[in-house]
Amino acid sequence: MPHEQITLYTAKVCPYAQRTEIALAEVGAPFKRYEIDLGNKPEWYAPKVNPASKVPAIAYGGPDVSPENPSPESTKLAESLILVEFIGDLYPSSGIVPVDPVQRAQARFFIEVVSTKFGPNFMKFASGNPEGTHAVLLAGVDAIQDLLPDGVKYAVNDQYTIADIALTPFWARLNVMVQKGIGAYKDEERKSFLKALEDPKYAKFNGYVQRLLARQSFKSTFHEDVVAEIFTKRFGLAK
Amino acid sequence: MPHEQITLYTAKVCPYAQRTEIALAEVGAPFKRYEIDLGNKPEWYAPKVNPASKVPAIAYGGPDVSPENPSPESTKLAESLILVEFIGDLYPSSGIVPVDPVQRAQARFFIEVVSTKFGPNFMKFASGNPEGTHAVLLAGVDAIQDLLPDGVKYAVNDQYTIADIALTPFWARLNVMVQKGIGAYKDEERKSFLKALEDPKYAKFNGYVQRLLARQSFKSTFHEDVVAEIFTKRFGLAK
Ligand SMILES: N[C@@H](CCC(=O)N[C@@H](CS)C(=O)NCC(=O)O)C(=O)O
Ligand SMILES: N[C@@H](CCC(=O)N[C@@H](CS)C(=O)NCC(=O)O)C(=O)O
Repeated sequence: MPHEQITLYTAKVCPYAQRTEIALAEVGAPFKRYEIDLGNKPEWYAPKVNPASKVPAIAYGGPDVSPENPSPESTKLAESLILVEFIGDLYPSSGIVPVDPVQRAQARFFIEVVSTKFGPNFMKFASGNPEGTHAVLLAGVDAIQDLLPDGVKYAVNDQYTIADIALTPFWARLNVMVQKGIGAYKDEERKSFLKALEDPKYAKFNGYVQRLLARQSFKSTFHEDVVAEIFTKRFGLAK
Repeated sequence: MPHEQITLYTAKVCPYAQRTEIALAEVGAPFKRYEIDLGNKPEWYAPKVNPASKVPAIAYGGPDVSPENPSPESTKLAESLILVEFIGDLYPSSGIVPVDPVQRAQARFFIEVVSTKFGPNFMKFASGNPEGTHAVLLAGVDAIQDLLPDGVKYAVNDQYTIADIALTPFWARLNVMVQKGIGAYKDEERKSFLKALEDPKYAKFNGYVQRLLARQSFKSTFHEDVVAEIFTKRFGLAK
């Protein structure tokens, strides 16, 4: 299949946006990358690219134009999970969308758990919400570990898929925060979380997330310095 | 592709469960239907079928057993939207999952809008939440109408897809409620909603939802009497 042009509107700090960058790296798709300054979004972005005014978004197809002057002829698509599946659908042989319907459903169920049981808890923890304790973070870790099959490398099997892509940028950001004490939580919550994770019962989870962070598609799209700087500004340091 | 057995755990009242019944009807898949009494769930349901203890759920494959005694050899799957895509993936020629990656992404975006802008507003309205005004319901209608392409029958094109399936059972239940005055809202909110929908600016939306309710796969899986009875018990009548 000949591919149309892809322009990605993204931001280094944003975990949702990084999902799409990982997917593009995994499938090896050529694309134009345009960084949106979330603190100072260009005026044309909402009207011409994404009415929700969020990253990530993709302009797909249409003529070869400057990202700052998107063509009405390209199709504008948004929502990170939709974009990740879209990229996988464009490059089916990449395997990031499992071919088998059952494994596809399992990948999507894993994503649902990441979205409902890990993501919100991570945000509560980072922002110092009184509900954002280390116990709540661990509940998210438990929910994920419960889904991991034994003896395979990733969420569904030995193939890195949309399921793993959904989690990777969020786990990476949490990791930076707890390593550096960035976040509005109490420092004892951070220590309790790190301590709890050392329990051998989390061996499967720890092995899994280590593999996520070792993935080349993650490393080449992660900007730890930018994340640390912006998150420190936004959430401050643990007390 | 030879198909494995499908056992569906469902409930007539439940809009999420009806999504999967519509999908199965659309693709013409044979399946065993097992009604779960949500007011008195069988003890084996959570441990053996769906740990979240919700309908819908599917037991896929494994030996031909009684639904009340699910086999550990079948794969248990849950979450209505995942099941709908799964059913479409099992029967790709049905077309309920669009083949074109762009249309697939558009169908999923439509579903995202149904899930975030229509579903929650519907629940607020039904339950008499002070935020559940007719204006809030109409905001959901606007968000959906904005996505409907001109001159086609359904959400993506002339083919009935996962996008339409996601909305149909929810619209049908809202329709029953506002026709019969079932719900904890103020009756004037109901009247204002019906009145507002008569505005010619909603012609596209009205035509669309009429087509949804005329669909055979919907009609053969909708139990208006059960919905009306249980919703009246749950929410009461408008005042
Ligand atoms: N549900 C969206 C969430 C995207 C999102 O929230 N992006 C943030 C940055 S991480 C954003 O662009 N926010 C708007 C802003 O900062 O002005 C997705 O999955 O793509
Ligand atoms: N997110 C789920 C929601 C399913 C759901 O909430 N089902 C309700 C009935 S409509 C249920 O089974 N609730 C549990 C109960 O009533 O005990 C899906 O999309 O399948």
